[in-house]
Amino acid sequence: MPHTKTFPETSAVELRDRLLETVRQQMPVPFTERDAERALAALLTTDNLWEAIRLSRVPLRVLSAFWHRLIAEGLLEAHDGALRLTESGQALAQALGVAPVREATCVHCEGRSVDYRTLPEDVVERFAEICRHRPEAIQDYDQGFVTEATTLARIAFAWHRGDLEGKQLLVLGDDDLMSIAAALTGAPAYVLAVDIDDRLIQFINDVARREGLDRLEAVRYDLREPLPTSWLRKFDTFMTDPTESFLGFKTTIERGLLALRGPGCAGYFGLTHVESSYEKWAQIQRFLLDSGVVLTDLIDDFSAYVNWGYIESMRSWEWLPTHRLPERPWYYSALHRIELLRTPALENAAVEGDIFTDEEAATT
Amino acid sequence: MPHTKTFPETSAVELRDRLLETVRQQMPVPFTERDAERALAALLTTDNLWEAIRLSRVPLRVLSAFWHRLIAEGLLEAHDGALRLTESGQALAQALGVAPVREATCVHCEGRSVDYRTLPEDVVERFAEICRHRPEAIQDYDQGFVTEATTLARIAFAWHRGDLEGKQLLVLGDDDLMSIAAALTGAPAYVLAVDIDDRLIQFINDVARREGLDRLEAVRYDLREPLPTSWLRKFDTFMTDPTESFLGFKTTIERGLLALRGPGCAGYFGLTHVESSYEKWAQIQRFLLDSGVVLTDLIDDFSAYVNWGYIESMRSWEWLPTHRLPERPWYYSALHRIELLRTPALENAAVEGDIFTDEEAATT
Ligand SMILES: [Fe+3]
Repeated sequence: MPHTKTFPETSAVELRDRLLETVRQQMPVPFTERDAERALAALLTTDNLWEAIRLSRVPLRVLSAFWHRLIAEGLLEAHDGALRLTESGQALAQALGVAPVREATCVHCEGRSVDYRTLPEDVVERFAEICRHRPEAIQDYDQGFVTEATTLARIAFAWHRGDLEGKQLLVLGDDDLMSIAAALTGAPAYVLAVDIDDRLIQFINDVARREGLDRLEAVRYDLREPLPTSWLRKFDTFMTDPTESFLGFKTTIERGLLALRGPGCAGYFGLTHVESSYEKWAQIQRFLLDSGVVLTDLIDDFSAYVNWGYIESMRSWEWLPTHRLPERPWYYSALHRIELLRTPALENAAVEGDIFTDEEAATT
Repeated sequence: MPHTKTFPETSAVELRDRLLETVRQQMPVPFTERDAERALAALLTTDNLWEAIRLSRVPLRVLSAFWHRLIAEGLLEAHDGALRLTESGQALAQALGVAPVREATCVHCEGRSVDYRTLPEDVVERFAEICRHRPEAIQDYDQGFVTEATTLARIAFAWHRGDLEGKQLLVLGDDDLMSIAAALTGAPAYVLAVDIDDRLIQFINDVARREGLDRLEAVRYDLREPLPTSWLRKFDTFMTDPTESFLGFKTTIERGLLALRGPGCAGYFGLTHVESSYEKWAQIQRFLLDSGVVLTDLIDDFSAYVNWGYIESMRSWEWLPTHRLPERPWYYSALHRIELLRTPALENAAVEGDIFTDEEAATT
């Protein structure tokens, strides 16, 4: 095991391959050469643990396993919430031709391509005021809500795409309070927010009443149950921020598709790197095409999540080689818009068992 | 045929369906209810012909056919380059619940999510200077190049994603001069631009020499020919702005995939609405997944095209119900990034015949 400061390229590649092999044997989830490259690029760019996760775009489960291997090989040091490549680690990265990450994100729209400030000012102000009293994110329901700017930007995006004004909108799971932001615009014909969390249902209905949003309604619903018949083929647009276990994701999206009136209708959802490998992204893309939809937009890092209070009890906390609380958002998702081209043949069946976790889960 | 100022909803729907049916009978390309809605939304938003095309997101071939039907039914007037819904047309749109388009595009990054100003200043300046003497876009090769901001933004995006620095980049068709912008950053290990147009090959090689870009090279290549053996499995990243006939698109992307070293490598391409229906987008997405790639980014309206000189001889000019030259960009494409998950089994065969046009072609 070389601990020299330079690596001949062949032994750098061999070491990299050995690290990959070890991680793959430990982990039932994909971990590719490109993932390793991204992980090293992130480590060349920052010593902040959470920034490294954000910049790596690799599922946290394998990423942390990779970090542990690097530490065991004397290539990485981890303490006080900081991750630092050792001289050997830097030499390895250099020999492999890995470059630091050079971000180009637009600061004005925070990389979303749409500007939420294009919304009417009172919508933005009222939403901010309402959010001051929102229910906190709790672990029971795998909650972690996005920043207010993100929620507003999603609404601005959907409005731009023609999925909001005069339309029937279904929000499947709404700790992001998309239903409220949408209703505040006055644009939708009707907004239904459904969620398993009674606090959210209560909160949204209270807001609807207090703010005079008479076309907004919230109803309790557990997506493991079949979609109520009155919601089938009723909506023009659905929005959701689904769990990322493949089964949970599929269940959620199918409920959304069942709720749509037919071809031409749209859906919005997010997917992360923290909890989904590109292998899973591809599996999901195939499922979507097989379900009769086309992907019309895919904007990575669109959605920024506010750090949730229970972060120290999420399952991945103990995988981390060093600990500190995050100071900024680190958990991001890619906004997807889909449009239905043909009505899929779907069953509206109850789903049993744990649909919320798979091998890539990290934050429950 | 009602020419009244209001429409009961049922007769609005009937009229819309009749218009759809007529267009579909005329046209061998898809035209959906949602397309009709988008087209009407655009007409509610602007009276400028080119803005209407841009905002419609519908292939120009069917869009213009739809406009002609609307004109025949007294719902639309077209003259002096302006398209105006008549009172009946507005009433129809209203009865169908169509709303005007409400754009939310970030003005700072022009909706790209990345800011090209994050590139080193000298790259931006030198590229601008070089572009002053670029070959003009000619119809022979289906050329129409993007704005300088767009080319630079693509490079900034690729750099951010780790597809540029230290990498081997292949540009398949380069009237956008992506090879030059990439080489100016000094980041890539090697850039090869290939094109059928000798003027571009000459221009790029002259620039490389003059600017001291010794890792940039341009070589003539006709993508109907098999990819030269020395380029197979050689590159980390390919970039292209392909023709949008399905066969032409597939051929171009397959050349790109054949040039990639293997899993983890990336490709970039654009797709428009002007020349591709969402039905074709879905067909393309399926082809990509079957070729072993995952779609990692899809940013619509990323690329803005400079109006080309031969616009009055493009095939769609005569389809337009009224004429005027465009004052601003109207032709946009969606930037796609793909990443290879597994090496596809592809043939490197010559392709015969016309691969540049299909029924949705509009600008050749
Ligand atoms: Fe921006």
